[in-house]
Amino acid sequence: MGYELKQLAEHIGAKLVGDGNVVINSVASIENAGVGDISFVSSGKYKSSLKSTSASAVIVIQEELANAVVPALVVSNPRAAYARIVSMLYPEYCPQAGIHPSACIDPSAKIAKTACIGANAVIEANAEIADDVRIDSGCVIGRNSRIGKSSHLYPNVTVYYGCSIGEYCILHSSAVVGSDGFGFEFDQNEWLKIPQVGGVIIGSRVEIGACSVVDRGALNDTVIGEGVKLDNHVQIAHNVQVGAHTVMSRGVGVAGSAKIGKNCMIGGMAGIRDNIEITDNVIITAMTIVSKSLKKSGSYSSTTPIDDTKSWRKNSVRFRQLDDMAKRIRQLEKQIEDKG
Amino acid sequence: MGYELKQLAEHIGAKLVGDGNVVINSVASIENAGVGDISFVSSGKYKSSLKSTSASAVIVIQEELANAVVPALVVSNPRAAYARIVSMLYPEYCPQAGIHPSACIDPSAKIAKTACIGANAVIEANAEIADDVRIDSGCVIGRNSRIGKSSHLYPNVTVYYGCSIGEYCILHSSAVVGSDGFGFEFDQNEWLKIPQVGGVIIGSRVEIGACSVVDRGALNDTVIGEGVKLDNHVQIAHNVQVGAHTVMSRGVGVAGSAKIGKNCMIGGMAGIRDNIEITDNVIITAMTIVSKSLKKSGSYSSTTPIDDTKSWRKNSVRFRQLDDMAKRIRQLEKQIEDKG
Amino acid sequence: MGYELKQLAEHIGAKLVGDGNVVINSVASIENAGVGDISFVSSGKYKSSLKSTSASAVIVIQEELANAVVPALVVSNPRAAYARIVSMLYPEYCPQAGIHPSACIDPSAKIAKTACIGANAVIEANAEIADDVRIDSGCVIGRNSRIGKSSHLYPNVTVYYGCSIGEYCILHSSAVVGSDGFGFEFDQNEWLKIPQVGGVIIGSRVEIGACSVVDRGALNDTVIGEGVKLDNHVQIAHNVQVGAHTVMSRGVGVAGSAKIGKNCMIGGMAGIRDNIEITDNVIITAMTIVSKSLKKSGSYSSTTPIDDTKSWRKNSVRFRQLDDMAKRIRQLEKQIEDKG
Repeated sequence: MGYELKQLAEHIGAKLVGDGNVVINSVASIENAGVGDISFVSSGKYKSSLKSTSASAVIVIQEELANAVVPALVVSNPRAAYARIVSMLYPEYCPQAGIHPSACIDPSAKIAKTACIGANAVIEANAEIADDVRIDSGCVIGRNSRIGKSSHLYPNVTVYYGCSIGEYCILHSSAVVGSDGFGFEFDQNEWLKIPQVGGVIIGSRVEIGACSVVDRGALNDTVIGEGVKLDNHVQIAHNVQVGAHTVMSRGVGVAGSAKIGKNCMIGGMAGIRDNIEITDNVIITAMTIVSKSLKKSGSYSSTTPIDDTKSWRKNSVRFRQLDDMAKRIRQLEKQIEDKG
Repeated sequence: MGYELKQLAEHIGAKLVGDGNVVINSVASIENAGVGDISFVSSGKYKSSLKSTSASAVIVIQEELANAVVPALVVSNPRAAYARIVSMLYPEYCPQAGIHPSACIDPSAKIAKTACIGANAVIEANAEIADDVRIDSGCVIGRNSRIGKSSHLYPNVTVYYGCSIGEYCILHSSAVVGSDGFGFEFDQNEWLKIPQVGGVIIGSRVEIGACSVVDRGALNDTVIGEGVKLDNHVQIAHNVQVGAHTVMSRGVGVAGSAKIGKNCMIGGMAGIRDNIEITDNVIITAMTIVSKSLKKSGSYSSTTPIDDTKSWRKNSVRFRQLDDMAKRIRQLEKQIEDKG
Repeated sequence: MGYELKQLAEHIGAKLVGDGNVVINSVASIENAGVGDISFVSSGKYKSSLKSTSASAVIVIQEELANAVVPALVVSNPRAAYARIVSMLYPEYCPQAGIHPSACIDPSAKIAKTACIGANAVIEANAEIADDVRIDSGCVIGRNSRIGKSSHLYPNVTVYYGCSIGEYCILHSSAVVGSDGFGFEFDQNEWLKIPQVGGVIIGSRVEIGACSVVDRGALNDTVIGEGVKLDNHVQIAHNVQVGAHTVMSRGVGVAGSAKIGKNCMIGGMAGIRDNIEITDNVIITAMTIVSKSLKKSGSYSSTTPIDDTKSWRKNSVRFRQLDDMAKRIRQLEKQIEDKG
């Protein structure tokens, strides 16, 4: 599929500089691009590539325009413009609406006519599937759950009973929504299960990665705000609240009843303790353990730096002496002081 | 579904104080409860809420009874009593016994008449499914595997061949039992697979979270004791043994042939090295790396504390100088000593 | 299934010492072995077991032969020999070729006659399934994807569209190949999805563990080299390149566009930052965070040592004072120097 550059400019609201009739078929990186490709440059470090590119067109900010040797689209955010152009050039595959004959649909389920239900998918009693939803092969939607307009569940996603998923959401394969929260009470020498009778409410435009899990609430609901993006292997425990537009990278674990603010960015494999509160606009770097509430916006870290194993071992064993070292420093300071 | 308070009291063996005829329909937190709700208070800090609650009844310990302004159930463990009452008020959904017509059952499989096999589930040759088992849609049970009485597998669980799962177990979606252990030997410039010919034996009343994995043994079996509870994203490697009533929070990884005792509590995202042994009643805090055997009961930790990223960076780089710092402290001490 | 020892010797190319007619039915550990078992010993510490074993035969290196009291196979790598013998004694289950009647196969898909497609599996348009491939129940293979000769996908694996998997690969249950990379651009107060239009290319003899995820590339492909072995819960992000014969233990996370060399060994739950490069033959110990490129072969670590929680707490709080401690040591050194 190809577009003239002026069509792209118009579609994304960019200023066109140069020949608008050049045909663009695909995107490519600035170094590898050739005829028919459009590229983008978001930082100054690609200036020389910009001058020598073989792309048919480039996407640049105003400040870089002077370096462009081919037709250009001038925008304030080249990466966003790129994303929109990719959507035009590589339109998403769109299967025909309808229910695959092998799917098992409970007679009480309400499926919009424009929805697409894949092979061997299962829709249980009273589930509601809205317009333009796409439920791929092998997905299971539990009773009384609702999938909002235009959402897309890739193959083998499981949504338990009584969960609500917003509009334009994307759930990747093996993801699970609505599994029991991890709640037990030790009684009479064994762990007694505390039934998890809350649900899950997921806002619109949320993306949930492959093998990620959102547990149902113990009593009230687990709530994921609008526009939240969760990478793969992320865990949201029971009764967690995640504020709008927060993103979590791969493997983040959020423990029970934690409350995360809006517009946070949680780095990969970070762990967030139960019952703590994180305010808006907090950045957590990768593999950090958040063991207390964070009431102030900003960036937070724990972790220790990588080193060759031999040096690391030498330093690492000293970690167990830190308190002792601190006390000995204080002692030395006193001795020096005393001696005047 | 509602019960009179006296019925609840009788069922859970609580002492009833006040009007036993009040009708209870649901549970709610002490602050949010209203007419028809029962709440529980487990610690002194809710004393004021207890005095002002609008709940129809409360569950308390004897010591808190004086503060209760509504009918009360007096018990020694309010949280356990709460769990039992939730089970009464919110009975688990119970599908009709039988095999869904879309399920694929090998003719040699033995399925109890009271079992419930969901849509598109697959039961392979010689598998045995006991009474009252519930196998939800999309599950696959491998040949020669056995699922004990009253166990429940949520949708899209996979149990490989030759695995045994006890009674009253719960397995959540996308969980996997019996996948190959990670065993290879480098030979002739590539990794040669060591066939994993052991099985998995899971005791009764075990819960396994969504996307958790229990690998089969290399030669002998991987064994999970009775009453063990595994949260989501937990990994149990080949030939691991987990003692009865041990709980592991989300994301814990137990490496090959590790042996974990009874009644341990392993915090989220902790990692346990291969071939080590952990005795009974050990607590591991979240994200700790257990790199050696723990022969003494108690609580163990590694990890470093969270800080704002700027301060963290300043301190973190010093980690690589710890050994040097320790030596310089010793040197200073000597110099001071020498000077008398 | 049993073999005479001489048959085993011939098959694996071992030197036979002793009675070659003894029949071997199974493998067992050196301490537990009995009649009909073969055992192996790879290190000197089993010398006494070797002298007293009840096994019918043993696999040893030349140096240990003198300690063997039963017929022996002499090889240079006993563990590799053991692996090959296990493959003979416990041959993999091999279902009949063909397509289960409940599988949903798009008419345009090309399925080799010798392939085996399990119950309720789904093969989408134009997918190609090569000779001797085994696709188990509940797997979904997306349109235009290809599965190479003799590969085996265990139940409930999902391969998205446009992915290529080599020959003799093994993918375990709930694994996902080809899910979207985690790419977004913040624009107009929300995260704009960057369409992920690259694919995934997986070399031959690759094993991918249960619940592991390999994301598709943003623009170019994500590439996994030949002979790579990934344990369970591993994540390979978009545009990552993994060199041949690299192994990653459970839970490793590799972030976007990282480039990992050949023959690396990445320990469990280690995290590798986006866009960094790791050269060949690097070892990363468990739970290490790799925050910078590693250009030199060798072993690397971060993490801190486990301690009892009380001691750990005392030392851990000092981590926040490390920079201050280092400065005070320097100050003390100056004071002492000054006093000379």
